[in-house]
Amino acid sequence: MTGQYTAPNSLSETIQLTCELISRASVTPDDKGCQELMAKRLEAIGFTVEKLVFGEVTNFWARRGTEGPVLAMAGHTDVVPTGPESQWTHPPFEPVIEDGMLYGRGAADMKGSLAAFITATERFIQNSPEHKGSIAFLITSDEEGPADNGTVKVIETLEARGEKIDWCLIGEPSSTAVLGDIIKNGRRGSLHGHLKIRGVQGHVAYPHLAQNPMHLAFRPLAALADEIWDQGNEYFPATTFQFTNIHSGTGASNVIPGEIEAQFNLRYCTELTEDDIKSRVHALLDQHDIDYSIDWHLSGLPFLTEPGPLVDAAIQSIKDVTGRTTELSTTGGTSDGRFIAPTGAQVLELGPLNATIHKVNECVNASDLDDLSAIYEGILNQLLGE
Amino acid sequence: MTGQYTAPNSLSETIQLTCELISRASVTPDDKGCQELMAKRLEAIGFTVEKLVFGEVTNFWARRGTEGPVLAMAGHTDVVPTGPESQWTHPPFEPVIEDGMLYGRGAADMKGSLAAFITATERFIQNSPEHKGSIAFLITSDEEGPADNGTVKVIETLEARGEKIDWCLIGEPSSTAVLGDIIKNGRRGSLHGHLKIRGVQGHVAYPHLAQNPMHLAFRPLAALADEIWDQGNEYFPATTFQFTNIHSGTGASNVIPGEIEAQFNLRYCTELTEDDIKSRVHALLDQHDIDYSIDWHLSGLPFLTEPGPLVDAAIQSIKDVTGRTTELSTTGGTSDGRFIAPTGAQVLELGPLNATIHKVNECVNASDLDDLSAIYEGILNQLLGE
Repeated sequence: MTGQYTAPNSLSETIQLTCELISRASVTPDDKGCQELMAKRLEAIGFTVEKLVFGEVTNFWARRGTEGPVLAMAGHTDVVPTGPESQWTHPPFEPVIEDGMLYGRGAADMKGSLAAFITATERFIQNSPEHKGSIAFLITSDEEGPADNGTVKVIETLEARGEKIDWCLIGEPSSTAVLGDIIKNGRRGSLHGHLKIRGVQGHVAYPHLAQNPMHLAFRPLAALADEIWDQGNEYFPATTFQFTNIHSGTGASNVIPGEIEAQFNLRYCTELTEDDIKSRVHALLDQHDIDYSIDWHLSGLPFLTEPGPLVDAAIQSIKDVTGRTTELSTTGGTSDGRFIAPTGAQVLELGPLNATIHKVNECVNASDLDDLSAIYEGILNQLLGE
Repeated sequence: MTGQYTAPNSLSETIQLTCELISRASVTPDDKGCQELMAKRLEAIGFTVEKLVFGEVTNFWARRGTEGPVLAMAGHTDVVPTGPESQWTHPPFEPVIEDGMLYGRGAADMKGSLAAFITATERFIQNSPEHKGSIAFLITSDEEGPADNGTVKVIETLEARGEKIDWCLIGEPSSTAVLGDIIKNGRRGSLHGHLKIRGVQGHVAYPHLAQNPMHLAFRPLAALADEIWDQGNEYFPATTFQFTNIHSGTGASNVIPGEIEAQFNLRYCTELTEDDIKSRVHALLDQHDIDYSIDWHLSGLPFLTEPGPLVDAAIQSIKDVTGRTTELSTTGGTSDGRFIAPTGAQVLELGPLNATIHKVNECVNASDLDDLSAIYEGILNQLLGE
């Protein structure tokens, strides 16, 4: 039904637009026309929309205004695969509201937020056509995939021409129990290591002619697993280190293998840098007499937006709309915020409940989307209102 | 050329018979007529041959005499696969002598020994037709395979009818640098363990909700790897413990897996029993707070033939034929001796050089086979001569 779908007029504008976006089966990196739909709405209220295609990924940057400060709303039109469709109560790309819950892939992550961004902006422009600064949209279709040709590349484009974002509101589903209970004002960094420790292969009956890499590895690996990396800080929990995969052996029961491989991941806070971690891992391993190597992969730098205009506006707007006192958090996985924060932007993630994201029967409380739109509008009013 | 091959008459009887056996491509469990060839030779000199087929495995038990003591010559007609035939200088089942070396799959392991058994026995019977006790042959075609339907089953058959072996000479290639330098008067036991340590699966960004089985495992595994099990004894090297395989992880870099699996093998001496080892492994693991289980598999009990009539006769005969002083050893892998020794038999392994066994271009010094036949004859003379 892609492109044919029309949501019932009885629904709110935000819910209607969410349904129209869900009906477009935009599994990463296919955008399936979601961005075109958004772009048309934005052009209608005075935005200049710039389509930015990198590889097979469609992105856009839209801006209304030429002055600073720039408040950007960031998000992704792509969704994760549905998993077995037969397990869904309703087809995942046919939005349905049942008992107040709107079902469909992307309902919570994050087409509901995209729709709320648009409707909030439409109302804001109507009330503040001469708003301060600029409003922008940074939209990708690559957040759930490799994230190589999405936000990273758009940010590179902006940086290259000296275009800056001051405040970035990301629509990731941050809420946990009720709408607005948690906003994310930062994320931990994520650093991967692939460790190889070499021994000498041989026959299990002649261990004196071999050197068992597993026997060499257990104490160094235990030292890494047991290390306390830091105590965290005011905004971040302590850095964590977890082995994710380990393998050694040929499968045979009479062979001592020549090598052991172990993969690990650190979720680290702003108390440590990437280089700090690498140095400490090497220092721990170098205490053992082992022949080893490590391939590193940095998946995201940590970032933190300390309380300031953006955080304050979000807290106030959540309070105004829902009556709730929100909590700042930096836990959880990574988000595209890791690519935006390094430019100096304040970055905040605020979206609906994340209980069903990436699962079968993904859903969102439909009226939460109207509240979310009101919250976003309140933030626009506080930061850029006439 | 199976069954068609005739060795040149210019060769010694032992080398001729070895060539005829090599020409029969008896990869486990196929005997390809090797045993029929041996049985005919034995029947011709007064043996009663009993064919014992279990499953797809052909074995035979042959005996000359009804009294004790029983000296059995034990061996196997099966050979390991050739590996890539193109890497062989000569086709593996077409015996060729070049520069004094006889090439072919099974030349060293152990068709040369089988031929030497036969020709030694033929000469011995000619000189001692009224020998003491009994001479027996215990031949299988399952030693290089699962070893389930070979020696084990023949021994069960003999035990069931109360038939005992006093001395057992196994033709396994025991020599290392020169013929007769080493004989094996025992073998270590081999015990396998498959250890599973359980944790709780989870997302790497939320380790407090998971329990990483690798982190739990490293110290207990190190304790096992570092344990000194015993000091060996006069006849055996110390017991060894080696991990052979370890695995944990889903392959994903963001998942803490729920379980780690590790396989290990002990080669253990007569200072320990299977139960001793199991108790000590559990005692070591129980010092750690882990949820674990172990599946055990006993691959062979240790056995030892202390110096006595069989060992003395072998040492003397090697000295007489080669002038060498032989060394007793219990190192190396397992052999079918593990199934024979528990009946109370003295078991000794004596055969040609093992440098090329299981390899491409397996070969044996041709004149060594004549010497080996003379050594076997000397043992028969000392133990059962008129």
